[in-house]
Amino acid sequence: MKVALVMGSISDWPVVKQTATVLDELGIDYDKKIISAHRMPDHLQQFAKNAKHEHYQAIIAAAGGAAHLPGMLAANTLVPVIGIPVFTKSLNGVDSLLSIVQMPFGVPVATVAVGSSGAKNAAFLAAQMMSMNDENIYHKLVQHRAKQSEEAIKSNEQLK
Amino acid sequence: MKVALVMGSISDWPVVKQTATVLDELGIDYDKKIISAHRMPDHLQQFAKNAKHEHYQAIIAAAGGAAHLPGMLAANTLVPVIGIPVFTKSLNGVDSLLSIVQMPFGVPVATVAVGSSGAKNAAFLAAQMMSMNDENIYHKLVQHRAKQSEEAIKSNEQLK
Amino acid sequence: MKVALVMGSISDWPVVKQTATVLDELGIDYDKKIISAHRMPDHLQQFAKNAKHEHYQAIIAAAGGAAHLPGMLAANTLVPVIGIPVFTKSLNGVDSLLSIVQMPFGVPVATVAVGSSGAKNAAFLAAQMMSMNDENIYHKLVQHRAKQSEEAIKSNEQLK
Amino acid sequence: MKVALVMGSISDWPVVKQTATVLDELGIDYDKKIISAHRMPDHLQQFAKNAKHEHYQAIIAAAGGAAHLPGMLAANTLVPVIGIPVFTKSLNGVDSLLSIVQMPFGVPVATVAVGSSGAKNAAFLAAQMMSMNDENIYHKLVQHRAKQSEEAIKSNEQLK
Amino acid sequence: MKVALVMGSISDWPVVKQTATVLDELGIDYDKKIISAHRMPDHLQQFAKNAKHEHYQAIIAAAGGAAHLPGMLAANTLVPVIGIPVFTKSLNGVDSLLSIVQMPFGVPVATVAVGSSGAKNAAFLAAQMMSMNDENIYHKLVQHRAKQSEEAIKSNEQLK
Amino acid sequence: MKVALVMGSISDWPVVKQTATVLDELGIDYDKKIISAHRMPDHLQQFAKNAKHEHYQAIIAAAGGAAHLPGMLAANTLVPVIGIPVFTKSLNGVDSLLSIVQMPFGVPVATVAVGSSGAKNAAFLAAQMMSMNDENIYHKLVQHRAKQSEEAIKSNEQLK
Amino acid sequence: MKVALVMGSISDWPVVKQTATVLDELGIDYDKKIISAHRMPDHLQQFAKNAKHEHYQAIIAAAGGAAHLPGMLAANTLVPVIGIPVFTKSLNGVDSLLSIVQMPFGVPVATVAVGSSGAKNAAFLAAQMMSMNDENIYHKLVQHRAKQSEEAIKSNEQLK
Amino acid sequence: MKVALVMGSISDWPVVKQTATVLDELGIDYDKKIISAHRMPDHLQQFAKNAKHEHYQAIIAAAGGAAHLPGMLAANTLVPVIGIPVFTKSLNGVDSLLSIVQMPFGVPVATVAVGSSGAKNAAFLAAQMMSMNDENIYHKLVQHRAKQSEEAIKSNEQLK
Repeated sequence: MKVALVMGSISDWPVVKQTATVLDELGIDYDKKIISAHRMPDHLQQFAKNAKHEHYQAIIAAAGGAAHLPGMLAANTLVPVIGIPVFTKSLNGVDSLLSIVQMPFGVPVATVAVGSSGAKNAAFLAAQMMSMNDENIYHKLVQHRAKQSEEAIKSNEQLK
Repeated sequence: MKVALVMGSISDWPVVKQTATVLDELGIDYDKKIISAHRMPDHLQQFAKNAKHEHYQAIIAAAGGAAHLPGMLAANTLVPVIGIPVFTKSLNGVDSLLSIVQMPFGVPVATVAVGSSGAKNAAFLAAQMMSMNDENIYHKLVQHRAKQSEEAIKSNEQLK
Repeated sequence: MKVALVMGSISDWPVVKQTATVLDELGIDYDKKIISAHRMPDHLQQFAKNAKHEHYQAIIAAAGGAAHLPGMLAANTLVPVIGIPVFTKSLNGVDSLLSIVQMPFGVPVATVAVGSSGAKNAAFLAAQMMSMNDENIYHKLVQHRAKQSEEAIKSNEQLK
Repeated sequence: MKVALVMGSISDWPVVKQTATVLDELGIDYDKKIISAHRMPDHLQQFAKNAKHEHYQAIIAAAGGAAHLPGMLAANTLVPVIGIPVFTKSLNGVDSLLSIVQMPFGVPVATVAVGSSGAKNAAFLAAQMMSMNDENIYHKLVQHRAKQSEEAIKSNEQLK
Repeated sequence: MKVALVMGSISDWPVVKQTATVLDELGIDYDKKIISAHRMPDHLQQFAKNAKHEHYQAIIAAAGGAAHLPGMLAANTLVPVIGIPVFTKSLNGVDSLLSIVQMPFGVPVATVAVGSSGAKNAAFLAAQMMSMNDENIYHKLVQHRAKQSEEAIKSNEQLK
Repeated sequence: MKVALVMGSISDWPVVKQTATVLDELGIDYDKKIISAHRMPDHLQQFAKNAKHEHYQAIIAAAGGAAHLPGMLAANTLVPVIGIPVFTKSLNGVDSLLSIVQMPFGVPVATVAVGSSGAKNAAFLAAQMMSMNDENIYHKLVQHRAKQSEEAIKSNEQLK
Repeated sequence: MKVALVMGSISDWPVVKQTATVLDELGIDYDKKIISAHRMPDHLQQFAKNAKHEHYQAIIAAAGGAAHLPGMLAANTLVPVIGIPVFTKSLNGVDSLLSIVQMPFGVPVATVAVGSSGAKNAAFLAAQMMSMNDENIYHKLVQHRAKQSEEAIKSNEQLK
Repeated sequence: MKVALVMGSISDWPVVKQTATVLDELGIDYDKKIISAHRMPDHLQQFAKNAKHEHYQAIIAAAGGAAHLPGMLAANTLVPVIGIPVFTKSLNGVDSLLSIVQMPFGVPVATVAVGSSGAKNAAFLAAQMMSMNDENIYHKLVQHRAKQSEEAIKSNEQLK
């Protein structure tokens, strides 16, 4: 059981790397790829159409600006697609967010937050989906959340 | 295998009904509930904490304005939460969208579009998640998408 | 010499019809088609890849929400693509506008205004492009603009 | 008589510290705590439900992004809640502001400005509330405002 | 113990009436007044400067557009001011919201939501402030919230 | 004949200084003052009410955030008020712009651009108003504009 | 002494009519004209260049969308230009507002509010400019403001 | 066959230079000019009216803020105009974008993205228009796109 981690450009890697780190922490296997919706449209089609047969449990796709990658992947597969709106200097990632989240009826993209939190959460969301049928991942998520909770509680000591 | 369909208020039903209709079409079982994050916070906690034991495969939650329902559900369970931003008259649902999508690291909400398309897509997204381990649902999704495609192609005849 | 007039859904026709009317007025031949980026991605690819061989001088594409149609057409052809952002109830067409205009380096979409003016201007823009090598169209544009100018001047009489 | 000063994360402390400084200046006693709405939901509930019995006169809560902390505190107590929208890099704090201010009927959050001014004003607002029944605080506020006024007047000399 | 209910124009009454209704329900005495910041600036000053001596526990002020009323009241008194951003057709009340909430250091306005919910919540917020020293009002708020909760729970029956 | 140059805070001086420089260049006499709408409301009233008798031809007022200074000056005098929306870090000056420009019927503020261009243009606008009855200022404006035009034309040489 | 009242299209007349009504009330003479920046650019130039010789004291210009009329008039004359941003269905007049107010250094447009209030205020602003040298207009403005104030005060009776 | 490359100010050159570089790469001849819409309106008119006779195949125009240059060029010629919205510090280029794209019926501007991508894409768009009748340019575009595609594919190696 593995996940696909796709980005529109090598310049998105600093964002997507944060997704990869969380996947590593959770012990989830993944393939990472650059597939530009606008520069590699045939690859996009081919990749998405094979996603089911490649046994990907989810596709995580990051893109910025007129961010068509997540939606076009979703149009070519029924494997769930999680979209990360990459921050853009000119429009603060609002363009990325709206291009990803406002999908038409029948072709959803599970959208997460703009920026760092979103990048990490894409991994958690994929893990949560997979955990519905994988006790191991579920267990890791339980542990992770407990750890986050503990750390938040402990951070109170720094206030004093 | 079933889904929970939660809304913040009875006034969200006209939106959530569209989600229910799609779930019906796809033959997915669901429980529907009104759980106001701000008026029934104890119910929210209790519901979310039991969600895993109730064997919900996903929770779909619709809310508008300062839309805290999906995020607070997500904070209390590891069952994947799908958030529907309900359109608001004053701020066009931008408030709902940002309140739902901008979740912090560790607690994702899978956000769909503001309004009708989003309401329907929440059902499709839940179905896609479940289809990873349910051939039956997968098959129904394949059929549905084929039908949508055919209808789109056929609609060309209306243009003439 | 002809133009392709593409829309994402039959529901965009009331908008695109205004483009068609202007093309008719200017005597420009066109094919009109519904090609949903998300429901007919193979048709999109095929259509766009053949566009040059079909001798389209320009492709006009209208779409709303996460409007990927114009950008994905542009990714698959070098025929110039003109994008019309369709007004959306929830986000006033801002989603459509940003999804269309914020294209990455190398794959431009010539974007026009949200709504009616944009729909008509897509036709004028296509005509202006074609007029660079077609005296006939150029002449019609000169006449049309003169008529618009005259009408604007004449409208002063209504003020009295 | 004291105030609770709550933040969603230790990273909000540089903002909340400005609130604390003003409370110190006005001689108002306060407890400061990190309570993450999403990572410590049980603590949030417990804290808010005890707030009245702890004799907090007001709760000041700072949060950013999908900022659910102030609203969820408000849902669990009738002690007045003052919400500080923390600036966010990606969306300039607009997400924080809308998540905090757009509360539904019956569960208000007294919202102040995004950023520094808001952080300080949360303290002043709490003080003003308490001053309605505390001559001492009222007196300190009168003095502070007089001082601010004087400084503003005096700053005219720097212009010359 | 009473509250002042101020609006910038008679045209704001349909909004402010909702505040009045809640105050009536909670048994809170109030004076209602039209004081235009821009057309009655002397009245504004005089009113605000007397507010403390008139024993107002809070001032609720509604205004739209360049909504200066709440902030200018706050500049002239230390009685807490609650601001209601009135919906505006042209800018959806975003102008009202920002004009009210973005107050400078030292002069806070407790801002509530744009529109109906905000109008009602202004009354609840005033009541919560007063309830800190008034068992009667506190009791009424407890009852009201319990009723809201019950109604929300009961509305589940309508779903079936 | 002179102009009043008012700012809400000494921190606005780097912006307002640009206005002062243009006034100097155009030989227009001015008084500069800090008058905080929220910290010096009595001074504001008094200043604005005397503005006509002080023979100010125009009042230029700069303010940021919930920028009430220009509008409240306008409410207290019939001397034309020019408003400069000061850039704000959190909301990019959109709050300042809307707080200044959206004035109600009967009390206009002549609003200029957010930031540097606006600060300079406030001076030009005042000068243009005064030039309607002052040949000397008119002449200086003609010269300045000619110079700007020349410089723009000349800047073409830098391109080569 | 008169004012020019210019609009980009006959469709702006319902807005501009409100300006005209106020000018009539104040006894200010005016010429009204339709000059489309984009359809009558030569007329625009000619009109603006003659504005000084025609003894216009101010030019009021209303336009919507990519609203270039006020700014291009200002580029061709030193007579003060007042810009009215006309409400647009698609973008709520935000496009009009930004196209008018964000003018570069040296060429200001005195911008008023989007919509009705702005249309009326354009007349008041022009009157205020003229009143600096016209006792008669000044007197009328004093009377008008007194009347507005009285009416606002009187409207309090309707509340009872 | 050549293109005109126009900018509103020398300060736009760092943006427009990116357009020039792409034109150079594609072997397209161009004239570059500074023509300020607001400081050189006569030059603008004259230039645009001669554009057809100068045999420009397209005009690329970059401008920021109240960006009237592309639209006013379009009003004075039928040569297609491509507009580049220059990023602005205060409003992130949203002002530039809306001022350029929201053109009225009959006078289109082909708008590209805010910032760098847009600047480059203006050149590609012009090239695509010209390539409809110029095999040479078409060939270069085919090569360039193939190269971009290859580079995107190759960048996958950097991921490993």
